[in-house]
Amino acid sequence: MKAAIIDHETVHPGARDTPAAGSGEILVRIRSAGINGADLLQRRGRYPAPPGSPADIPGLEFAGEVVECGLGATRFAPGDRVMGIVGGGGQAEFIAVHERVAMPVPAALDWAQAGAFPEIYCTAYDALFTQAQLQSGERVLINGGAGGVGTAAIQLAHLAGAFPVATVRNEKMAAHVARLGAVPVVAEAGSDAAAASGPFDVVLELVGAVNLNQSLRSLAHRGRICFIGVGAGPKCEFNALHLMAKRGRIHGSTLRSSPLEEKALLARELERHVLPHVDAGRLTVPVDRTFPLDEVHDAYEHFAAGGKFGKISLLI
Amino acid sequence: MKAAIIDHETVHPGARDTPAAGSGEILVRIRSAGINGADLLQRRGRYPAPPGSPADIPGLEFAGEVVECGLGATRFAPGDRVMGIVGGGGQAEFIAVHERVAMPVPAALDWAQAGAFPEIYCTAYDALFTQAQLQSGERVLINGGAGGVGTAAIQLAHLAGAFPVATVRNEKMAAHVARLGAVPVVAEAGSDAAAASGPFDVVLELVGAVNLNQSLRSLAHRGRICFIGVGAGPKCEFNALHLMAKRGRIHGSTLRSSPLEEKALLARELERHVLPHVDAGRLTVPVDRTFPLDEVHDAYEHFAAGGKFGKISLLI
Repeated sequence: MKAAIIDHETVHPGARDTPAAGSGEILVRIRSAGINGADLLQRRGRYPAPPGSPADIPGLEFAGEVVECGLGATRFAPGDRVMGIVGGGGQAEFIAVHERVAMPVPAALDWAQAGAFPEIYCTAYDALFTQAQLQSGERVLINGGAGGVGTAAIQLAHLAGAFPVATVRNEKMAAHVARLGAVPVVAEAGSDAAAASGPFDVVLELVGAVNLNQSLRSLAHRGRICFIGVGAGPKCEFNALHLMAKRGRIHGSTLRSSPLEEKALLARELERHVLPHVDAGRLTVPVDRTFPLDEVHDAYEHFAAGGKFGKISLLI
Repeated sequence: MKAAIIDHETVHPGARDTPAAGSGEILVRIRSAGINGADLLQRRGRYPAPPGSPADIPGLEFAGEVVECGLGATRFAPGDRVMGIVGGGGQAEFIAVHERVAMPVPAALDWAQAGAFPEIYCTAYDALFTQAQLQSGERVLINGGAGGVGTAAIQLAHLAGAFPVATVRNEKMAAHVARLGAVPVVAEAGSDAAAASGPFDVVLELVGAVNLNQSLRSLAHRGRICFIGVGAGPKCEFNALHLMAKRGRIHGSTLRSSPLEEKALLARELERHVLPHVDAGRLTVPVDRTFPLDEVHDAYEHFAAGGKFGKISLLI
């Protein structure tokens, strides 16, 4: 099969053996796969694939059609449209995954959207609800609202009755995130521009550690800060007394290396709490641009250049 | 009434007006009150009393007899033995508190123990169970096991089926905490001496920020670190990626400034989950030494000198 291959800090199309569906697994003919920040880190050699994932095929998500069901795999039939998150290997023509990490693709999503849906919605749902326990009526600050996870988080928070405030880099992005339901704040990393819209019950951090002290200052009593993205740097410095006085908490998470059972549990949560909203047309997957697999190198360069709104999808 | 009075970084006995029981309140003739780290900070002028508490009478806990019930206060009758946590004012002959922050004193506790019980057991219970959600079978590291909160946390964790490991400063303290149910580790602040007993599902931090990176290293997947005491310093530095990789969380809390309803809720939790164990003789309150109120200055000096095992109580 054809696959995106990481080789000496570049990504190019290459050939690999087509995997087979093991016990409990489905073999999927992939139609689309989103690109994520972790893929770029892996390309640079700074983020090895987790155990059980191919060492040199990136891709944390996929959408495609089931072509074969392994022994005991009964959730799907050949031809079904499925999508899901994986530890790697999504940017290829085929992938074999346990049937319980796969979700059905709602009819409302085309392939480009479906391949870009799982990572951002799983990450945003897990951070906002499983970890930070965001509830109706609460205020949530989303630092980095124009990226993939940011666009998903804004929409999920809005639908759950919370009040999302999203920081973005410029007025163009402010208009984009406002359409998704957020109060936009144009802000440099580490600025206090969003503080006037606080205090915040939840802060979803998609930019970096530079925002931590400002987040602590504008945190509400019993507030939660959730580290998901630290592209602007991971080194945190803070005063524990400030966290104690707020009775606050700081979470960190990455789904990439989470075990099969956690990925499966999260897929069930999304089927119950998120996919019905997709069916109802209430959630969108902003796709900034698509690239064919043969142009995977350009796709990564476009991602690395920044300034996009939403996701970049490979069509495979 | 006589009370401990903070005056220019010293604490001496002095006279203040006896409070009256307001609506929903009980007036308590205090028999005993523990000394806590926050009292020392307040003495030094670095920790002003929270709103609603007397500005110059320290004391975060009390035990005594009800002498009067205010309008609508029906939980207790005059003569009942009660104890509880407050934002201040516990180190005095009388205190008026809302009846819902008070708990009955189990028959198994004498006055010295009862006055030293509420703060350490409320703090340890809240940190381990409400915040960190410690469960049976989990390993918990208690950094600073020989202090008041440490001794309560060890016993509560042990009774709940968790495996407590406690760091202490010397072999004498090691023997003390071992008797309470902990695996003792003699360790300097910031050392990795406890790591061999990990990984830990929960770390209760009673020493300071200096332990944070070692705690992150020995944290289990989905582990929780809880900052309660930072006497050795509050400045935290850590790498968010380390927290994210463990899917961990860092909590901070202090009960002193928590609102009435949180203190009341915690009192109900202790009545249900902790006091039955006190009645059954399964929980102790190690009291290092008692002082009469007239010697409150010496009591604070003894507390500040360190090296104690468990609590120091004022008998009033």
